Amino acid sequence: MTEIALLLYDGMTALDAVGPYEVLARLPDAQVRFVASTPGPKTTDVGLVLTADASLDQVPTPDIIVIPGSGKVPFLEDPAAVEWVRRAHQTSRWTTSVCTGSMLLGAAGILQGKRATSHWAVRDYLRNFGAEPVAERVVVEGKVITAGGVSAGIDMALTLAAREAGEDEARALQLVIEYDPQPPYDSGSLEKADPETRQRATELLTRGVA
Amino acid sequence: MTEIALLLYDGMTALDAVGPYEVLARLPDAQVRFVASTPGPKTTDVGLVLTADASLDQVPTPDIIVIPGSGKVPFLEDPAAVEWVRRAHQTSRWTTSVCTGSMLLGAAGILQGKRATSHWAVRDYLRNFGAEPVAERVVVEGKVITAGGVSAGIDMALTLAAREAGEDEARALQLVIEYDPQPPYDSGSLEKADPETRQRATELLTRGVA
Repeated sequence: MTEIALLLYDGMTALDAVGPYEVLARLPDAQVRFVASTPGPKTTDVGLVLTADASLDQVPTPDIIVIPGSGKVPFLEDPAAVEWVRRAHQTSRWTTSVCTGSMLLGAAGILQGKRATSHWAVRDYLRNFGAEPVAERVVVEGKVITAGGVSAGIDMALTLAAREAGEDEARALQLVIEYDPQPPYDSGSLEKADPETRQRATELLTRGVA
Repeated sequence: MTEIALLLYDGMTALDAVGPYEVLARLPDAQVRFVASTPGPKTTDVGLVLTADASLDQVPTPDIIVIPGSGKVPFLEDPAAVEWVRRAHQTSRWTTSVCTGSMLLGAAGILQGKRATSHWAVRDYLRNFGAEPVAERVVVEGKVITAGGVSAGIDMALTLAAREAGEDEARALQLVIEYDPQPPYDSGSLEKADPETRQRATELLTRGVA
């Protein structure tokens, strides 16, 4: 059995968690635990309620850790979660994050001296944790995998699925979730977006809708 | 205010709903209502619990309808939901589905004579509702938009966002969710996947993990 701990908290971005979840929950013998400092319903940043079914203490040694990010809570201030991930990382097979979830890994001291990524709007902040921010969608450093903003968790999870269950299984999982993306624009990264799009997106983020 | 009704139900696929939600909830003046025949917690197909906060009766005339699909419940058998979508469609600005959610639109008579899509595994079943199944990721037919399997809801929502709020806003939303997909394989559609991947994915679907 592969125990996967997915951290939930108020203000998190739902897709940061649900993207990886749809891939990882389908791995052979996977069991996903939705953990939180306080179990129960968590209201995500634009309203959807997800439910955490386990406390951090109940899942002390997960095989795979997934830390989603948030637009509302810029960086999660939750000492219990920081301490939990610090300890769980000692025995995990993979420790991963999506979007600003990498800040929690940073706060736990896990990114010291490592290349890492985050949402483009705050990527450089990773330096404060001794990490080297890089403009890549998925960054694998040993057993630590960080992904870019929100939707990048899907790519991260498929990368991880290949390492856990082989490339054939990862290819099949990609087909199961019909992941043949056809985004209408070429504006999905800071490097590709034009200045007007960047400004508009930054305004949306500042208004707290992300 | 743009009222967006997202149908939740036991056995649904979480990403079918959460992909569109992350885009549509960020539209100007959007209000997302999570509706269900019976409000309350809904257990999605691989375990995550989402909460519906409104009954169908409470949201009779949404501007935008989003019907997610399911792997566990092949086609949603919920006469109340079928009747609700049939009526709501009469006044909606957009009626949309992701994955097998199109079967509910079909059951409500909305796809009669229209081009439409669904998850590749069951796409041809749309003929039973008088629809013409097409192998496209997002199909726009008047005010009806159907999307392919699971992850296709993100592309659908960005297409819809452009029509609702303009292309500049849609480009910015794509950057907000950092949707610059880099899938590790080219196996995300039936047409692109090799025979082994198709077989493996079909087995995963049959085992009910999707």
